[in-house]
Amino acid sequence: MLGLAAEFEFEAFVRLAGDAAAAPSIQERQVIARSAVRALEREERLVERITALGGDPAEAMAPFDGVVQDFEERTTAGSWSERLLKAFIGYAVADDFLRLLAEGTDPETRELVAGLLGDEAHTELVVAQLSQVLADDVAASRLALWGRRLVGDALAVIQGTIVRHPAFGRLLAAAGPGESEDRVQRVFAALTAEHTRRMERLGLTA
Amino acid sequence: MLGLAAEFEFEAFVRLAGDAAAAPSIQERQVIARSAVRALEREERLVERITALGGDPAEAMAPFDGVVQDFEERTTAGSWSERLLKAFIGYAVADDFLRLLAEGTDPETRELVAGLLGDEAHTELVVAQLSQVLADDVAASRLALWGRRLVGDALAVIQGTIVRHPAFGRLLAAAGPGESEDRVQRVFAALTAEHTRRMERLGLTA
Repeated sequence: MLGLAAEFEFEAFVRLAGDAAAAPSIQERQVIARSAVRALEREERLVERITALGGDPAEAMAPFDGVVQDFEERTTAGSWSERLLKAFIGYAVADDFLRLLAEGTDPETRELVAGLLGDEAHTELVVAQLSQVLADDVAASRLALWGRRLVGDALAVIQGTIVRHPAFGRLLAAAGPGESEDRVQRVFAALTAEHTRRMERLGLTA
Repeated sequence: MLGLAAEFEFEAFVRLAGDAAAAPSIQERQVIARSAVRALEREERLVERITALGGDPAEAMAPFDGVVQDFEERTTAGSWSERLLKAFIGYAVADDFLRLLAEGTDPETRELVAGLLGDEAHTELVVAQLSQVLADDVAASRLALWGRRLVGDALAVIQGTIVRHPAFGRLLAAAGPGESEDRVQRVFAALTAEHTRRMERLGLTA
């Protein structure tokens, strides 16, 4: 779990640095570049935790190489708004998934992950930027459609990750009552519900 | 000058984040990612200074959009060693040039720039990594050749920048005695001398 989280944060750092370069204004560029730095800082904390638990960070992260790329390649964002929404939805769903996985780990790891995840500054930028775009009904319905595609892609990447790493299924099962498969299904229901809540915050239909 | 420096550091941040993603080991990846963060921090300091002087950072930086890309596109690094040497030489020559430009500015800006530039941790990584590669004579002579191409590219980008922005020629002239053109020539001689010193540190013929 820590390997996945660390690899995810590192790749988020690289992607966000690229997003910053493509930002249309210097203000957005600075905010997104800072988000990239925070992702790297989270990765560093996670790498420290892997080491503290006696693990080898490189070994722990290697199986998840390309996890963000997998999501990035599924759908190509056209406009800047689409790119913003893509990063926002992708990282938020991943955060939620990591938090759910962490519930099955030791208390210290769980607390670390819960404390690390979430990036309010980035969320606020996205909400502020997109609210301007969403004043236009056509743009809003196009973005709502885009959001639905994105969450589908994000959930598919997560499902693929669980299938390739059965230990995640066990971690999710350990975190709650009921049958293991039910628990995995409940996880997807929880991820979808969180996504719906976020889209509503943006004023978009999920 | 501050606009050029800030844009340069921002683009260095983006490039180094990409370099980190391509690093062959997790140790190198972490060191390079941290170099990227330091480049962004330098950019933030420079942006602050532009604002403190009453300038508009976006306006100050816009003329230099793509300055690192210009250098990057001239020659494509093949191996990881070539990529390391490319970043090392490119950023070092740029740092030297910015430092020389800063000599023609107000004392506070000059001090800020002198204090900001240079990244010892990054240099040490490059020196340590390349020394291993350079134990092999064939690799060493290939990298020496590569270094000569790179410095040529870096100086060409700087020359292009001076031609497009005559104010830089004036800044360089302000910083020393003699005719303006002589001074610009002396700058290139100084940049070449610094490059030779750095290549020698690596054990390479400049």
